[in-house]
Amino acid sequence: MKNNFSLVQTLPDNAARAGELTTAHGNVPTPVFLPVGTQATVKTLTPDELTAIGYKMLLSNTYHLYLRPGMEIMKKMGGLHKFMRWNGAILTDSGGYQVFSLSALRKIDDNGVTFRSHIDGSTHVLTPELAVEYQETIGSDVAMVLDECTPTGGDRDKVAAALRRTHAWAERCLKAHKREDQALFAITQGGVFPELRRESAGYLASLDFPGYAIGGLCLGEPKEVMLEMVSETVSALPPDKARYLMGVGSPEDIVGGVARGVDIFDCALPTRVARNGALFTWQGRRNIKNSVFREMEAPIVPACDCYTCRNFSAAYLHHLFVAEEILGLRLATIHNLAFIASLMKKIRASIIAGTFDVFRREFLENYAPTNEEIRISQKQKWLKAREIE
Amino acid sequence: MKNNFSLVQTLPDNAARAGELTTAHGNVPTPVFLPVGTQATVKTLTPDELTAIGYKMLLSNTYHLYLRPGMEIMKKMGGLHKFMRWNGAILTDSGGYQVFSLSALRKIDDNGVTFRSHIDGSTHVLTPELAVEYQETIGSDVAMVLDECTPTGGDRDKVAAALRRTHAWAERCLKAHKREDQALFAITQGGVFPELRRESAGYLASLDFPGYAIGGLCLGEPKEVMLEMVSETVSALPPDKARYLMGVGSPEDIVGGVARGVDIFDCALPTRVARNGALFTWQGRRNIKNSVFREMEAPIVPACDCYTCRNFSAAYLHHLFVAEEILGLRLATIHNLAFIASLMKKIRASIIAGTFDVFRREFLENYAPTNEEIRISQKQKWLKAREIE
Repeated sequence: MKNNFSLVQTLPDNAARAGELTTAHGNVPTPVFLPVGTQATVKTLTPDELTAIGYKMLLSNTYHLYLRPGMEIMKKMGGLHKFMRWNGAILTDSGGYQVFSLSALRKIDDNGVTFRSHIDGSTHVLTPELAVEYQETIGSDVAMVLDECTPTGGDRDKVAAALRRTHAWAERCLKAHKREDQALFAITQGGVFPELRRESAGYLASLDFPGYAIGGLCLGEPKEVMLEMVSETVSALPPDKARYLMGVGSPEDIVGGVARGVDIFDCALPTRVARNGALFTWQGRRNIKNSVFREMEAPIVPACDCYTCRNFSAAYLHHLFVAEEILGLRLATIHNLAFIASLMKKIRASIIAGTFDVFRREFLENYAPTNEEIRISQKQKWLKAREIE
Repeated sequence: MKNNFSLVQTLPDNAARAGELTTAHGNVPTPVFLPVGTQATVKTLTPDELTAIGYKMLLSNTYHLYLRPGMEIMKKMGGLHKFMRWNGAILTDSGGYQVFSLSALRKIDDNGVTFRSHIDGSTHVLTPELAVEYQETIGSDVAMVLDECTPTGGDRDKVAAALRRTHAWAERCLKAHKREDQALFAITQGGVFPELRRESAGYLASLDFPGYAIGGLCLGEPKEVMLEMVSETVSALPPDKARYLMGVGSPEDIVGGVARGVDIFDCALPTRVARNGALFTWQGRRNIKNSVFREMEAPIVPACDCYTCRNFSAAYLHHLFVAEEILGLRLATIHNLAFIASLMKKIRASIIAGTFDVFRREFLENYAPTNEEIRISQKQKWLKAREIE
C-alpha cells in the first residue's frame, strides 16, 4: 500500500492539519488518538464499548501478541481482528519498543535483537523480517518497521549509530513486506539531536513509505524538547503522508503535537491513569478517590456525554474506587477514552473551521497539566532497562 | 406490605411452584435467582448488563453498605436504587450473616451484636431495630429481619437458644418496620434439626410476614441434609407466601430447592467462580484456563445466546484469563449469570407446562456437580469465624 492518507484541510499559519486514513477496516478521520489494546484487549472494555465511544482504530503490541497467544494461535484464529472481534482498524508496533523496555537480556546486532520473555524468561529473536512477518500474521491495517530505540540520555555517537541501523532495518522491512491490505510505516529516530532528527526523516522519506512515525520521544525529556524534536522531524517529512507520534497521549501533548503537524497518536496513559482513579476534566486530571467526591451527586464532568457521566454520580464512582470494585476501573476508562475522543473531535472541527489556534489557546489556558511523575517513572524504567543491556 | 407474592402455578405431585413477586420496582417472576451486588455493584457489571441478561432483581448486603459508603451517604444519595442506578427490585439481607462470618470480635446478647469492621477495625452495634432502620434507608424492596446464625456443627441446645433469640428479634423487627413500599421477610433457622426447623417455620408463620427465608444452610453440611432441612421448613410455611433459600446458587442446588418449594435464591457463587475462570455448561463447570480451550474457535457453550458466547471464542476467553485481563472476568461473569437466568427460565416454563419433573431429571442426568472444595472452604471460614467469638 503506497499511500493510505489524504489531507482534508491544512492551515495557512499553523502546521495542524485534518485528514483521513484509508484502511481495509474503514476510514479514520485524523488527527486521531489510538487506544492501546496491549494484549488483544483495551483493558476493561469490549470492542463494542470502544465503538460506542467513537473509536475507529486501536493499537496492539506485537511483542505481547507474539508471546501470548502466540503467532500459531493468531494464524489459526484468522488474525487479530477476528480473534478480539474488532472490526475497526488496527495499528501494530513492531515489538521493538517492548523488547527494549520490557524484556530482559537483550543482545543487539545488525541482524536483530535476541531477548528473553518478561513472562517466562524464554529466549527469542526479533529481526526486521520477523517483525514484518508477525504483523502480517496479526493482519493489522498499519504495521511498523523494526527500529532501534535510543534512550533520551544517550550520547550523539550512540544515537547516530542506532540511527544507521534503524535505517538499514527500515529498508529490510520494506523489502520483506508483502501484504497489499496493510500499510507499513517507517519510524524516524534521532534522540534529542535536531540534525539527526532531520537526517532520519529525510532519509526515510526518500524510501517512500506510506506513513512516518516519530519514535523515541516522551521518554523523560522535557516537553519543550519533545515538541521541538517533533517540529524538526516534521520539517523533513513529505506533507502528503501520515505522521504518527508514538507513545504520546496526554491531552496537552496531543494538542501540542497536532499544532506541529502530527496526525496520529497512541498512548496507554488515558487508560492506565483511569485505572488509578485519575479522570480527565477540561481543567485537568482529578483523583476520584479524593474525599471531595464522596457526596457529589453530579457526574465527574457534568457536561460530559459519556456513558459514565450520563449515568453515574461522582459519589458512586468514588465509592467503587474506595471499595476497589472492577466496575470503577471500567467506568473511569470509558470516561477518559471518551474525553480524549471528544478532544480529538474538537481539534479536528477547529482545524476544518480554521479556528484551531483559538481552540488550542483556550484549551491550554483551562487545562492544568499533571505533574511529571509518570514521565519520570517511564524515564527511570527506560534508563534502567538500558543498563541491563 | 402484608403480601407481595402470588402463585401462578402449582404441581400436583411436586412442591415446585411458579409465582410472581410484586415490588415497588417491578414484578419478578419466580422461581428467581438474585445476583449478588455486595458493595452496590454486581462485580464487573453495569446495571444495564444485568437488565440485558434478563435480571429484574438483585441482592445487596446491608453490612457492606453500612460500612461503605455508609448510611449518611446512602440517605443523601436517595437510597441504593438511585446510588447504583438500578431500577429493578432489590433485596437486602439484614447484615447479620456478614457480622457473624466476616467481622471480628463479635459480642452477642439479647439486645443485638457488637462487632468490629473487617475494613478498619472500628466498633459497631447492630440491633434488630437498627437492621430495619438501615434497610429502610437503603430503600430495598425486600428487607430481611436480623437473625442469629448458628453454625452447622452447633449442638442442639445452642441452636435452640439461638432460635429463641432469632424469633424475639423477628418480632422486634416487625414492630420497628415502617416503610409501606418495602416487604420485611422473616428468617427461619434451626440448624440441621428437623423439629427445630419446623418449630421455627411454624412460629414465624404465626407472625404473618409477607415472606419467609430459610437461613443457616449451605454452610458445609451435606447436600442431602441441606435439602431435607428445606423440606422440613417448607412443610410448616404458609403456601401463599414467598420462600427464599438464602445463599444457595449452584445449578444443582437451585433445581433441588425448586423441587422442594423454594421461590427465591441468591448466591455469590456464579459470579465468584466466573472470576476464577469456572464457566457453567449444561454438562457442568469448565475451567477456561484449561489448555483444551487454547485453540477452540467456538464459544464455550456453542448454543448459548449470551453476549459472551454470541461474540467471543473460547480461545479468546482462554487468552484473556491466561493474560489476566479484566475483560475476561466480565465476559465470564456475563456468561455464568446468563446461564443461571436461562436455567431459571427453563425451570419456570417447565413448571407452568407441568413438565418440571422431566426437566429436573434430564438436567441432573447431564449436569456433573463440581466437587465440594468451595462448600468446604466456606464451612472452614464459618467455623473459624465462630471460634473467634
